[in-house]
Amino acid sequence: MSGQLFVIGTGPGNPDQMTPEALGAVSKATIFFGYGPYLDRLNLRADQTRQTSDNREELDRAGAALRAASEGAIVCVVSGGDPGVFAMAAAVCEAIDNGPDEWRAVDLVILPGITAMLAVAARVGAPLGHDFCAISLSDNLKPWATIERRLKAAAEGGFVIALYNPISKARPWQLGKAFELLREHLPDATPVIFGRAAGRLDERIALQPLSAANAATADMATCVIIGSAETRVIAREGKTDIVYTPRFSVEGTGD
Amino acid sequence: MSGQLFVIGTGPGNPDQMTPEALGAVSKATIFFGYGPYLDRLNLRADQTRQTSDNREELDRAGAALRAASEGAIVCVVSGGDPGVFAMAAAVCEAIDNGPDEWRAVDLVILPGITAMLAVAARVGAPLGHDFCAISLSDNLKPWATIERRLKAAAEGGFVIALYNPISKARPWQLGKAFELLREHLPDATPVIFGRAAGRLDERIALQPLSAANAATADMATCVIIGSAETRVIAREGKTDIVYTPRFSVEGTGD
Repeated sequence: MSGQLFVIGTGPGNPDQMTPEALGAVSKATIFFGYGPYLDRLNLRADQTRQTSDNREELDRAGAALRAASEGAIVCVVSGGDPGVFAMAAAVCEAIDNGPDEWRAVDLVILPGITAMLAVAARVGAPLGHDFCAISLSDNLKPWATIERRLKAAAEGGFVIALYNPISKARPWQLGKAFELLREHLPDATPVIFGRAAGRLDERIALQPLSAANAATADMATCVIIGSAETRVIAREGKTDIVYTPRFSVEGTGD
Repeated sequence: MSGQLFVIGTGPGNPDQMTPEALGAVSKATIFFGYGPYLDRLNLRADQTRQTSDNREELDRAGAALRAASEGAIVCVVSGGDPGVFAMAAAVCEAIDNGPDEWRAVDLVILPGITAMLAVAARVGAPLGHDFCAISLSDNLKPWATIERRLKAAAEGGFVIALYNPISKARPWQLGKAFELLREHLPDATPVIFGRAAGRLDERIALQPLSAANAATADMATCVIIGSAETRVIAREGKTDIVYTPRFSVEGTGD
């Protein structure tokens, strides 16, 4: 007998940014798997159990959740943000791909959430208003050379770039190196947005020009958005600057 | 006296995917600007007024909303999906950038939403589980040559590609041309996902290999996701296939 496996995202942490659909899954499930700080965002009942694990043990956690669901439990795997963006949905799919046949029979329901770059973008204007990309800066699961190649392709292609996992104790130099590389391809004044805990009470947003962008502004919970050559900043008296990327291209038809 | 301007997204149309934060803005505002079908998704009260306009008149609509807010009204501009992704937030910022000084004094509050690619991805697995990009295929506001350059950069860079605005009556050939171009850079079996009305009762999801991807499967409300060379398909007996992009790179460290 197979149960059900929900994979949800809490959004960036503001409870008002979590969808009713995801809250419905939280209400139905009886066992929760996830990184502790994400599970802390849910108001679980006494009859609901938590299986917390380290944020780096994604595949083990996915396997444990699939095992519980295939034995009949209603299980919820919890990510921050959106579960499909550098988060648990891919780990669950990977576990199914490499796991026993009965895991394919599990009723898998993945529910979307507000991913960090959307929440950060909304707080400053519309930096993702035109073509953009999302890159994980973690070289735990891919070589640094691949990341450099993608940063270069994105900058040359005119994409706005959202960086996830920009920095950690074990990866202290990668973000600074990324800024160095991007400075070879983008104007000095290109806006760089550092967004942490967007929409929460402890939110921290910083705006710096690429020429002076300081990697130490970021921590592991920061999403960094780097504009394209077309991204603009609007100064406002007594208010924070607005950053946006126009819907048209400067190479455009003027339409 | 300046009022307030909310810019919100309804998500892809399933009311359970709209955040409480966005619903709060809907409750506060008295004048609503947007494309009719998006406004139809809200349950407005008798004291709330609608200013519908054609989906192509984004800049005029943004100006009208800013004018009303700068005169003291509490205004809500409504997009589908997320307002910051190929939607109204950039048009509002653009109008402020080019408009009278008093528009900069308006209390602007942009609230994130579930954008189409996240909702479509969740329905099929985790195709956006690794580095990805979002490209609008509309050449109304940028030259087709720029789009081709970006598609090539994205495919060569190993990004999964989400295409917004893939096709319309006025732009019938662009999606087919994009598939042709991508076939030169990606394996025949690369999964292509066509997602329409994801999460809604009238949802339509189709999965085709790039070699046989048929542009006629899409309409203007479809989000098309094209995998990278690393994107995988898991067949399941009696269930739809799962599509996901592994968190690691095949060029990776094996970590």
